[in-house]
Amino acid sequence: MPKLISTRTRIADLGKPRIIVIGGGFGGLEVAKGLNGLKAQTVLFDRYNHHCFQPLLYQVATSGLESNSIVFPFRKRFGSQPDFFFRLGEVTQIKPEENYIETSIGGVKYDYLVIANGASTNYYGLKDVEDNAVAMKTIIDAIKLRNIIIRNFETALLTDDPELMNSLMDFVIVGGGPTGVELAGALAELKTHVFPKDYPELELSHMDIHLVEATPRLLNGMSDKSSQKSLEYLQRMGVKVHLNCAVKSYDGYEVLFNTGEKLITRTMIWAAGVKGTPIGGIPAESLGRAGRIQVDEFNRVKGYTNIFAIGDAAIMSGDPNYPNGHPMMAPPAIQQGRLVAKNIKRLIQKKEMKPFRYTDKGSMATIGRNQAVVDLKGLRFQGFFAWLVWMFVHLISIIGFRNKIFVMFSWFWSYFSYDKSNRLIIARPKDGVQ
Amino acid sequence: MPKLISTRTRIADLGKPRIIVIGGGFGGLEVAKGLNGLKAQTVLFDRYNHHCFQPLLYQVATSGLESNSIVFPFRKRFGSQPDFFFRLGEVTQIKPEENYIETSIGGVKYDYLVIANGASTNYYGLKDVEDNAVAMKTIIDAIKLRNIIIRNFETALLTDDPELMNSLMDFVIVGGGPTGVELAGALAELKTHVFPKDYPELELSHMDIHLVEATPRLLNGMSDKSSQKSLEYLQRMGVKVHLNCAVKSYDGYEVLFNTGEKLITRTMIWAAGVKGTPIGGIPAESLGRAGRIQVDEFNRVKGYTNIFAIGDAAIMSGDPNYPNGHPMMAPPAIQQGRLVAKNIKRLIQKKEMKPFRYTDKGSMATIGRNQAVVDLKGLRFQGFFAWLVWMFVHLISIIGFRNKIFVMFSWFWSYFSYDKSNRLIIARPKDGVQ
Repeated sequence: MPKLISTRTRIADLGKPRIIVIGGGFGGLEVAKGLNGLKAQTVLFDRYNHHCFQPLLYQVATSGLESNSIVFPFRKRFGSQPDFFFRLGEVTQIKPEENYIETSIGGVKYDYLVIANGASTNYYGLKDVEDNAVAMKTIIDAIKLRNIIIRNFETALLTDDPELMNSLMDFVIVGGGPTGVELAGALAELKTHVFPKDYPELELSHMDIHLVEATPRLLNGMSDKSSQKSLEYLQRMGVKVHLNCAVKSYDGYEVLFNTGEKLITRTMIWAAGVKGTPIGGIPAESLGRAGRIQVDEFNRVKGYTNIFAIGDAAIMSGDPNYPNGHPMMAPPAIQQGRLVAKNIKRLIQKKEMKPFRYTDKGSMATIGRNQAVVDLKGLRFQGFFAWLVWMFVHLISIIGFRNKIFVMFSWFWSYFSYDKSNRLIIARPKDGVQ
Repeated sequence: MPKLISTRTRIADLGKPRIIVIGGGFGGLEVAKGLNGLKAQTVLFDRYNHHCFQPLLYQVATSGLESNSIVFPFRKRFGSQPDFFFRLGEVTQIKPEENYIETSIGGVKYDYLVIANGASTNYYGLKDVEDNAVAMKTIIDAIKLRNIIIRNFETALLTDDPELMNSLMDFVIVGGGPTGVELAGALAELKTHVFPKDYPELELSHMDIHLVEATPRLLNGMSDKSSQKSLEYLQRMGVKVHLNCAVKSYDGYEVLFNTGEKLITRTMIWAAGVKGTPIGGIPAESLGRAGRIQVDEFNRVKGYTNIFAIGDAAIMSGDPNYPNGHPMMAPPAIQQGRLVAKNIKRLIQKKEMKPFRYTDKGSMATIGRNQAVVDLKGLRFQGFFAWLVWMFVHLISIIGFRNKIFVMFSWFWSYFSYDKSNRLIIARPKDGVQ
């Protein structure tokens, strides 16, 4: 039987406080980094053995980047950090009254607990969508989508039935946030620059990319100007944008909208929303909007003094600029992670904690080559320069020098060759892989 | 229902001869390339949508290279070749009397057929080994092995039972050919340079790498000097080499050898042999040693005038230097593929075919950084220079400029950092991926 605490391995009780971090996303990673140098034991749990740079998942799905260059092994990052321990496993239950968590690989006590398990896809109760659509939250999702896109085109070659063929060549992306917008743009590039060379047997004008957004505009978190410009870019690239339109049902073939409209597609990509990932032991009354855990200004979970929640997992009340919680994106998670690490240090040193204040550095999205929109504090721009800024910011944010080089080289290569080189199905149905 | 021949797609009957190539490995690729410019239709079938550079699979398995940099999409290679068609599918049955093949995606007639479906792993009837060992023939095998190696180490952290721990940290590689030798060397490098940093909680001296070979020496296809030197290199790196030793049984935990010895391991890598991949419709009497299809000096399958078999799939009689057939490696496949393409052209032009003569350019294997063995015609050398030659030859052989750059950069990076960066488990058991 697996033992998390063993006399042999150094995760044994060391007489130091043990801080357990659940999840190595943007927030959890900052906590673990920030605890370096503290006389304490840090234990990071994750379902994967690597951090994933989620903002670029859509480029993996559309063959622009290989999966390995946007992920980074935790052990490589923290190999030399004293008293740091990584454990590959899923936390299944928190027992706050015992300061104890149960995981898929055994149970362990904590002195401080940081819940940074991120968000999962929100299907808003649409069970048929959940069963039939592809999400865009994990590296597995991205590889699955890449396989599906390419396999669909290979299958489209085999039919004379125009409806069946169209169902394979059409894509419906639901959700006009950054993921949906960026994915739509990348698919439009495949249509224009890559697939005509790969599939001369197919009439590429039959490939329709639909982007569906329930509100009146794209990129709701950004300025009107950026919304408008991204819509223009996408339409110029041939993407069919449906605003004020929501999905009612999807059976894997027919999409029904609340407007009464219908579309036929084998591939719906669901980027319409995220919600907190439920974790056993957190009472329902501690949860807020979208299933996120309610926290105070120190990111402490309501009712507990030694349990924190950060990033997408948490919703902080009391920030007048964000009555519905901070945006479920990397920057709040990173800033909260850094502060929680410092606050835990302060707690251990019997000092007072500092409250969280979110610094909004702006946001950006890329729509395609030379086309991006950027909103910075008081500064808004679009087009080629925005696209350069977008690339620069993402490059410096990716963990690992080697990954930066690989991503940069891939981008250069794609830019000058108009190619996306990773259009591979690295799986066969009989291997049990999508 | 899928239709291979359709009025809409251009694979329709064009009034030109149709040449079908089964398999896009080293041999099949050369056939398809060689048919360029011929007034004929070339149709390539493969189970994958990409060519795989098999000689470097072991580096994917040991986290040295990412999977994408050793594979290359067929459509990218042949996108602009006129009258070339790729079809993703498996050929299930040949009906020579009708000049017809059945595939997983429908049936199609041929004028000329080239069987280049390569080899599959030969377990020599050991069913329990087949069920419990990992092979090293496909990109999926390599990714599976990478996942297993890392997952084993993550699990080894959780136990106090020394036998269980050793079973997770020990590896038994069966087969002392290039794949086995190169894999053993790469695992030894993980042990020395990478895992001590990743797993400070584990005593790495417990990690045993066993290389098992049934004959008295490693690298049987190479010179005595190279065999001897590779044995020296491996032993210096701590690999336990067992010569004159064959596996009798393996239940996933205990390996029993014909010497009566036993070993405990969760991970057996089976690189002990390959055999032809059976294909329906080729009569048993046409098969030779190791299930390879008997061909004449023009690579024509015995008894047929328009069916060819090349590479690992074929065994050619009549070459006095190779009474057991040409080696099951890339060079004979490449040379036969080139010649078969030319001979099909000659047949169509009613000219006489040219017989195959194998040019042995030598062979080589790498054991680790600065260590390789090279046998060229009349020239044998080992060590650092051999290692440079090995790298150079492999780099120029990989398809695609972009792949060359990625592989070269990965090698440089690993050389100077002593790191292997792709130690990722990009799969979770519940995703249905190993």
